[in-house]
Formats: sequence, structure tokens, C-alpha cells
Amino acid sequence: MIDPYNVLERASAHIREAGARVAHVSKASIHEKNGHCNYVTETDIAVEEYLKSELPPIVPGSCFFAEEQENEALTDAYTWMVDPIDGTTNFIMGRHASCVSVALLRNRIPVLSIIYQPYLDELFTAVRGHGAFLNGRPIHVSDQPFPKALTALGTSPYYAELAHATAYCFERFLTKGGDIRRVGSAALDCCDIACGRADIYFELRLSPWDYAAGALLVTEAGGKFEMPYEQNIDFGKSACVLASNPLCYDDALKILQDAKPLIPSGL
Amino acid sequence: MIDPYNVLERASAHIREAGARVAHVSKASIHEKNGHCNYVTETDIAVEEYLKSELPPIVPGSCFFAEEQENEALTDAYTWMVDPIDGTTNFIMGRHASCVSVALLRNRIPVLSIIYQPYLDELFTAVRGHGAFLNGRPIHVSDQPFPKALTALGTSPYYAELAHATAYCFERFLTKGGDIRRVGSAALDCCDIACGRADIYFELRLSPWDYAAGALLVTEAGGKFEMPYEQNIDFGKSACVLASNPLCYDDALKILQDAKPLIPSGL
Repeated sequence: MIDPYNVLERASAHIREAGARVAHVSKASIHEKNGHCNYVTETDIAVEEYLKSELPPIVPGSCFFAEEQENEALTDAYTWMVDPIDGTTNFIMGRHASCVSVALLRNRIPVLSIIYQPYLDELFTAVRGHGAFLNGRPIHVSDQPFPKALTALGTSPYYAELAHATAYCFERFLTKGGDIRRVGSAALDCCDIACGRADIYFELRLSPWDYAAGALLVTEAGGKFEMPYEQNIDFGKSACVLASNPLCYDDALKILQDAKPLIPSGL
Repeated sequence: MIDPYNVLERASAHIREAGARVAHVSKASIHEKNGHCNYVTETDIAVEEYLKSELPPIVPGSCFFAEEQENEALTDAYTWMVDPIDGTTNFIMGRHASCVSVALLRNRIPVLSIIYQPYLDELFTAVRGHGAFLNGRPIHVSDQPFPKALTALGTSPYYAELAHATAYCFERFLTKGGDIRRVGSAALDCCDIACGRADIYFELRLSPWDYAAGALLVTEAGGKFEMPYEQNIDFGKSACVLASNPLCYDDALKILQDAKPLIPSGL
């Protein structure tokens, strides 16, 4: 067994350092990956390499699963799931809305989360069963009801086939709830849910490194995190995700269920 | 005649002070205004009162036009057009994406703009004919072409009748351009266009205090700012606005023209 607080403290130091390296870059050096508007920068790669060298030694025998590498299938072993820069487009464009997102999984579920937003020096942390924190202070989801809910949405920009269903949800959340936000970082959207800066977050398709840390943060802050189109939550694959305060969950789920027929089969 | 740089310097000091008062508040005291999700806080009112007492003396005989008061019709006189907190919902929710937005108009057009984002200590300024600046350094719009354009949109949340047309635009910009952002502050969206952090910004209906300062900032940064549904630009009334880099303008305008039939007449 590991001591989660010792792991949290040691890992946080490296994740803060990684974030500082992200915030230090004024002009990103870009490579385009496969697909529309899917970018990687030299900084993504360098930060991932740094964390790959520093995090696994903290938990002996742990695996490393990350955005900018080929990954083995997820196992029950301790596994670091890392997005070196969540919000790469924001990073490239000079928008100060990116973060380093790290979860530690065991038995294929997150047991520890660390998300660091370096531009605002905000460190979000959670240990399963022990609550969620922002810079060491406890955080909690909002108690806003659905008719005034602020919904942060993801656009799944690499999947053009999802644009119509996403636009359908955009209109429904805007007219039935309050207003909409689109930040461009799934991990930061989950942080916003966890500390009550938004009430609902959804995205029709998202990769595990985008949501693993955020999922634990949201549930430890009293919120719900689900995969509405899956039989069971599976942190090893891409999925539609929904995070919200408990009051808004049923209304939000209904909209996502209504949107499902608009999604081409096979996605 | 005024010395614009002297006015800029004196006004900036007060606008920085106003921003500091906004950022200092950890828990906003809210009043609901007329309409859905339309809020005002004690801070909006206090900051507006502060600027109403400090700005007009800088330009003798100048008028004061602002969000949280009843306004006279706009005249050719020097007029301060003020949004004490642009992004009030963000302010209430604890999202660090609000600003103080101030334009000085003469002959009904902006001649000087100051927008201050206190959470990141970013002061955007422009004097007509003399360029746009962020913390004293020149800024310029992006040179991204439309197929990869990042579009910041406003949702006109107080006008439910515009939700369908906005959702139509959302889908078109997402599929024909790059990705979407929704920040929740029109003035900050214009700042993002001016410094190349986004390529296109539009909102189907916006009040003058939301866009006056941003409009000058965008054009002084080499961008375009237009009111696609109006015969002439009129800084005295609510309108649909479009701001973009020059490369993206025609494609963006076409989408807004295609959306016009979806807007109920009378709006």
C-alpha cells in the first residue's frame, strides 16, 4: 500500500514544476497531429518526458499512460494517467487556460488527482475518500438548480461527426438552463465543476487522460461524474462524459440521452 | 482638444483601481435584474459610482454612459462609455474572466479604449490612429485563415429568441472553422481578437457598453469590427457585432448573414 498524502506531496512538486515550464513558454513550437485542429507542441512532449521520468519512481512498479505516447492497455496496477498540457490549443494561442493533469489509478479507477493551472497558480488535488482541495482549501460543487445552471461544454473538435449533436446540446442547455461556457480544457472544466465555478460539464467524446483526474476531483467535491452512453464507467477508453452538481444531473442527462440519436453509429 | 495620452494615463490609474476592487471580492452580493440570468452585484454599482466620480473630471464637459444607470441618448460630446464589470456572471461564479471596460467617445465613435483584466493584470489600451497595446506592448490580430479559426462566440443569454440562431452559428463555425470558445465577457473576447488569442468573435445582440472599448481595440490592432445587420455602425445602440482578423472576415460574415432569417423580426 502507498501513503497517498506522501505520494500527493511528492507528485505535486513535479507537477508544479511541469506547469511552470508550460507557463514560461511565450511562443509554442507546433506540430500538427492526425486530425483537424489536433496539435502537439515541443512543450507537450518535453513536459510528458519530464513527468515520465519523475512520477513512476514515486510509486514502485507503477505504469505510465499519457497523451503523447503509444499506450499499453490499462491494467489493475498503479498507473499514472497524464495529460502534459490539457488545453494545447489555448497554450498555442496564448490563452491562459491550460493545465497539467495527472491521475493515479489503481484497479482501473483514479485514487489520486492533481491538476495544476500555472497561470493562476491553482493546484487542485483529491485523494479518493478524502475530499477535494484547491491550494489546500476544501472545495465543493455548487447548489445551483438547472434553470440557472452554467454549462461548460466540450466540442470534441477532432470529431466533425459530433458537431451536430453538440450544437443540439448547446441550444438545449442554453434555453433550458442558464448560460454556456467553452474553455477548451476538459480538466479545467472539471476543476470548475468541483469548486462551483460552473454547474454542468459535458463532452460527447473525450480521451481518458482528459477526464481521469477531473472525474475523481468532481466526485470528491460532492458532484457526479458519469459516462451516459456506457454500461459501466471505464477509465481506459474514450467516452462521452457528464459531470455536474447533484441538483442538475437528471436534467443534463436527459439532454444527452435525447442527443444520442444524432450521433452516427460507430462513434 | 484633449491630449489623449494624458487622458489615457490618468484614466488608466482609476480603471486599474476599479479592477483591483473587482478582484478583491471573494463572494459577490447579487441582485437579479430584469430578465433571465441578468445579474448585477453591489460591486458593479460601487465600481460604476467610483468611475462616474473620477473619469468625467479628466475631460471637462464629458458625459457618462454606463451599464448600471439610465442613460441619455448618445451625443457628439465626449462621452465615457463604461461597463464596470464585463462578465458579471463570471464574477459571481468566481471565474477569473471579468474586466472593467471603458471607452471614450467623441462624435459618437470611440477615440480611446481601456480594458483591464485584474486577475491576470492585463491592461489593454488603444488611442484612435495610434495602435493597440497590452501592458504597453503593441498587439496585433492573428493571421490564421478561416479553416483553422478559433471562434469566440457570445450567447446573448438575455434573449432566448436568439438561441436557435446562435446554435446554428455555433455548428457552422465549428465545422467550417476550427474550434469554439465561450468566455462570457465580450470585452475580453475583443481583447483576445486584438492580441491574436482568438481569430473571430461574434454575438447576435450586445449592448454598447459591452463592445465600444473592444471595437476600437480590435481595429487599432489591425482587425475588423462591424455590425453585420446594420446599415451603419452606431455605438449608441444594441446590435449584432462581428470582430475578426481580416483573413477570416468574409467567411464569418457569410455565416452571420445565413443566420439572419433564423432571428425573429423585431429583434
